[in-house]
Amino acid sequence: MKNVVTVGGGTGSYTLLRGLKKYNDIHINAIVSMADDGGSTGRLRDELGVLPPGDVRQCLVALSEHTETVRKLMNYRFEEGGLTGHNFGNIFLAALEKVAGTFASGVSVAGEILKIKGEVIPVTEDIATLAIKLKNGDILLGENSINHGNVQSSGVESIYFENEVQINRHAHDAIMHADLIVLGPGNLYCSILPNLIVKGFKEALKDSRAKIVIPINLTNKKEHTENWEVADYVNEIEKIIERKVDLILINNNSPSKEQIELYKIKEGDGVMVGNNRQDDRIIEKDLLSRELVNFDKSDTVQEHRSFIRHDSDKLAEAIVNLL
Amino acid sequence: MKNVVTVGGGTGSYTLLRGLKKYNDIHINAIVSMADDGGSTGRLRDELGVLPPGDVRQCLVALSEHTETVRKLMNYRFEEGGLTGHNFGNIFLAALEKVAGTFASGVSVAGEILKIKGEVIPVTEDIATLAIKLKNGDILLGENSINHGNVQSSGVESIYFENEVQINRHAHDAIMHADLIVLGPGNLYCSILPNLIVKGFKEALKDSRAKIVIPINLTNKKEHTENWEVADYVNEIEKIIERKVDLILINNNSPSKEQIELYKIKEGDGVMVGNNRQDDRIIEKDLLSRELVNFDKSDTVQEHRSFIRHDSDKLAEAIVNLL
Repeated sequence: MKNVVTVGGGTGSYTLLRGLKKYNDIHINAIVSMADDGGSTGRLRDELGVLPPGDVRQCLVALSEHTETVRKLMNYRFEEGGLTGHNFGNIFLAALEKVAGTFASGVSVAGEILKIKGEVIPVTEDIATLAIKLKNGDILLGENSINHGNVQSSGVESIYFENEVQINRHAHDAIMHADLIVLGPGNLYCSILPNLIVKGFKEALKDSRAKIVIPINLTNKKEHTENWEVADYVNEIEKIIERKVDLILINNNSPSKEQIELYKIKEGDGVMVGNNRQDDRIIEKDLLSRELVNFDKSDTVQEHRSFIRHDSDKLAEAIVNLL
Repeated sequence: MKNVVTVGGGTGSYTLLRGLKKYNDIHINAIVSMADDGGSTGRLRDELGVLPPGDVRQCLVALSEHTETVRKLMNYRFEEGGLTGHNFGNIFLAALEKVAGTFASGVSVAGEILKIKGEVIPVTEDIATLAIKLKNGDILLGENSINHGNVQSSGVESIYFENEVQINRHAHDAIMHADLIVLGPGNLYCSILPNLIVKGFKEALKDSRAKIVIPINLTNKKEHTENWEVADYVNEIEKIIERKVDLILINNNSPSKEQIELYKIKEGDGVMVGNNRQDDRIIEKDLLSRELVNFDKSDTVQEHRSFIRHDSDKLAEAIVNLL
């Protein structure tokens, strides 16, 4: 049984884990960012003092072997009364944190209830306030501000937590026992780096005997990584982890005209991640989803998913083939 | 495998079901009243238009074979922020109703997730507004008003639903296939009768080949059944179901002085249900719990449980012995 560790949060991890779940000969540990502070997650965090449940919820759903009804339940968003805007799954994790004593043990019970394959591990048990210092001296405070802010016009000086945020012991152990560690895919500043900058994370990566792979995002994010190429992502991540990664997984298929048109409506021009540099570590595969997303208002995982996105099964197969 | 049907809602059913769960050679169908409209349940009912989840939640918890943490989760009441006063389990059932399409199918999925022994069946799928007409012509509308109102000073003329409330087909089928039907224990006007007056219920009871037993409450309720005796409960129920019951189960043990003192603080004097009439159908047993309740503010099942109450195991054993 090979050990695969995924590192991320949000829909990138959701997509990857949904595919990996189908392989019976691997053990999955999904390490999840704890920096989210927007929407339903942000409200629960502020009002109840709990750790942010949103990203964990998506990973639990991805790995759950329960019925479709349970998946819908976890993503269900209330649209009436005092619960308006809350995701059921977030409330579930907030209550479990209160009842189980710690967020991590609550997530572990959630995993049992949802019959998940593998484990979902919060990268830290500390309350984490993400910050980006821009080159012009401005500071963006909180993941939600960063997500909706322009970090690119003046450039990122540094990304850090306001307080000391220590790696969760279980996350450390998972990294130490991994055969393969997958950094991404996902939002660079809001999902991937908030794992890597946790104290003890890069040290664990250095000590691990695992191969490290980056599945490069298909598209760039407006005002974050516009016009970036593969090498830009790799450099940014390697600068943070202070070591080379072993493999770089990129997509070599083109979206349909219809997909590009849909994407442009939302994100503007020039969003495909290009690649103009030779690198022996690069593996090219068709990783592209051909499905068009049907929006379902009460399903927040789908709503936030991009039009141009990885195919769960193709991505998982490419990852498993690296073992 | 013998089929046992319990009829009630609230803490009486919770106590009985927790004991019955331990018997592997019976199948349990718990039919639950749908008239609750107070507290967290009432808010969800009003704001989301869902059926009342509170009583169902308690029965699900009683029958769950999950860990203690899951029991605590289902009874967890939020104490901060916009969720204040809501039970997690009620929110869970409200969301499941939305996702599964109907309350009954939501309850069925909840049963799977909570790994319950047997089934929990809402007595009806109709929105039910309970009403009591008093002999002085006044009407108490809604279970919450009835629960907190004085129904005894002028006497009950009739108990009914404002609208037509039809028996759930699954409840009907459970009654038809039962070997033993247990009416209670529980609050007479707010838990037991709201099942029996559902359209089709008494007809099902008449057609069923099952033995019917009433486990008589240990104590009377202030301003509802003060100074009542066993025969008063039996008469009231038989008047509604228009047939005789087969067996009457009563407790023959006395509460400790400490229990009586604690009870008096809450409920006043003269609350023990007496018995001064001969009836061949009566079976007497020691059914009394000796445990003192430790209140846990966030656990609403315990909070509402009386100090003088049935022992789950003794009650279940007495019931199973009737099969």
